[in-house]
Amino acid sequence: MKATAVAPSNIAFIKYWGNADPQRNIPSNNSISMNLSGARTRTTVAFGAAFTADSLVIDGQPATETARARASRHLDHIRGLAQTDLRARVVSESNFPMGTGIASSASAFAALSVAGTAALDIALDERAMTELARLGSGSAARSIPSGYVELEVGSSHTTAYAHTLHAPGYWDLRDIVAIVSREEKSIGSSAGHTAAETSPHFATRLSELPARLETVRRAIRGRNIEALGEAVEADAISLHAVAMTSHPPIYYWAPATLRLIHAVQAWRREGLPVYFTLDAGPNIHLICQAEDEADVLAHLADIDDVLETLVSGPAEGAQLGDKHLF
Amino acid sequence: MKATAVAPSNIAFIKYWGNADPQRNIPSNNSISMNLSGARTRTTVAFGAAFTADSLVIDGQPATETARARASRHLDHIRGLAQTDLRARVVSESNFPMGTGIASSASAFAALSVAGTAALDIALDERAMTELARLGSGSAARSIPSGYVELEVGSSHTTAYAHTLHAPGYWDLRDIVAIVSREEKSIGSSAGHTAAETSPHFATRLSELPARLETVRRAIRGRNIEALGEAVEADAISLHAVAMTSHPPIYYWAPATLRLIHAVQAWRREGLPVYFTLDAGPNIHLICQAEDEADVLAHLADIDDVLETLVSGPAEGAQLGDKHLF
Repeated sequence: MKATAVAPSNIAFIKYWGNADPQRNIPSNNSISMNLSGARTRTTVAFGAAFTADSLVIDGQPATETARARASRHLDHIRGLAQTDLRARVVSESNFPMGTGIASSASAFAALSVAGTAALDIALDERAMTELARLGSGSAARSIPSGYVELEVGSSHTTAYAHTLHAPGYWDLRDIVAIVSREEKSIGSSAGHTAAETSPHFATRLSELPARLETVRRAIRGRNIEALGEAVEADAISLHAVAMTSHPPIYYWAPATLRLIHAVQAWRREGLPVYFTLDAGPNIHLICQAEDEADVLAHLADIDDVLETLVSGPAEGAQLGDKHLF
Repeated sequence: MKATAVAPSNIAFIKYWGNADPQRNIPSNNSISMNLSGARTRTTVAFGAAFTADSLVIDGQPATETARARASRHLDHIRGLAQTDLRARVVSESNFPMGTGIASSASAFAALSVAGTAALDIALDERAMTELARLGSGSAARSIPSGYVELEVGSSHTTAYAHTLHAPGYWDLRDIVAIVSREEKSIGSSAGHTAAETSPHFATRLSELPARLETVRRAIRGRNIEALGEAVEADAISLHAVAMTSHPPIYYWAPATLRLIHAVQAWRREGLPVYFTLDAGPNIHLICQAEDEADVLAHLADIDDVLETLVSGPAEGAQLGDKHLF
């Protein structure tokens, strides 16, 4: 009746933006990501007859009612699988700040799915677990399998699943988050997904994606940082072009975000193979190979706006057990 | 053989971005602008048998060879009209910085067209003068007529012309440029126009424009700042979405540009009806009604990044004569 799981967040190289079926988080397009060794959530779920309602503690604090209700809806899916109506106590802890462009909902719902099913003795294979996690947060599906992962768009609950493209050891990439703001973003990803359809540029983005997805698959397979980086930057900008042309427009970038976009371009002109990507928030992710990590960090140290950096390599997916987290 | 003209720059509410015919600056879409009383260029053209080559002095300095050659090509058009091959000395002076998102080429080529034709005693009506100016710089066509001006896309040299929608006195708007950088932009508008076609989002932008043009015409006619402002912001963002998704991408914004985008949104939430627009550069134009000018300037004074402000009302178009400029 009690279990603990640890799940990584992930950084999308091809972003998930917009839903074909918002009710079940069935995305409008395939996405490709890398799990992050440095950004993880550990969640313990305990079901008990004594609980009259689901409760949620995040990082030692009682969660907001919005967060509690969202977790509770996800627990409903898990309860449905076990045919029970037991309420649960959920305790969750992450080693990275929430709501600032690092997908905390990805690691949180992946960990909640694995811990919640284990606590009720529900056995799901990896594919079914990705489908379950997706119901909580679309990108959480990508935090279940290991390494480099693709989330298939599918056309139904059981065809919109995630699977590993390559194991973490296949290519030693780095994701370096340059944290320029610790404020929670004012417009969450969920609202952004909904707004996507109001942008005239959304359909254009979707029409570009089949070719860009293939470029990214091939670039990872061939360990080609230039090809990967160019496609990753183009995809991030495309997402933000959609967000900024939504009705009403959504501007996720901070001034420092733009300073870093310019800086990355300048460093590349000087010969450093580093690329950027941006989720739905102001913090910027720099993508490079392991051999360039120190050089990228040294460059970042010169920029006042960078409050903190968070370095990750490719990581295993969600795992059951009270693994050492931090 | 010698004449002087003064022409305003203009701020586009619906932007000109991309050419149907790059050779003759026939734009891909209609554009609508307001001439700027505070940003003008005065140009004197003197043709003479003694000159062996065209020369160009800008703001007291000999111009770069690139600028000189571009002016010389425009003088070729004027010489063609007069059937002469006399070379010219051109002296030009502006009261605003060049290459930073204020259309210096608009006022420069409008003034050059008016002064150059007058120096050779060529009589052109206003429409023909806008066509001539357009050959030098597409947006220069809009600096010939007075007030609020539309540049028709046309399909040939003589159908791509500009005309007044409303006289300057029709609506007392303000354009307040917040100058955050005096550096010349690294990628000029001409290169941006060419790059536009490489963006998958360019066609989407063009498809939106007929409706947005009509919104702006109606908003000016009805003196409706909210309707105008929303359309103007959407159009600027659409241009920059195209630029950022061009191959290679063009990022015209500076960090301070984004700080001001956020600030304008915040001021509006507080009830101040002010809107932004952005040309191909980092400086941001704030659009408001005359009655809110002082309030907008007071808000801008609180922002450290703003080096200077430049306030304009709607202005007359290009005029012959040594009018007092500054």
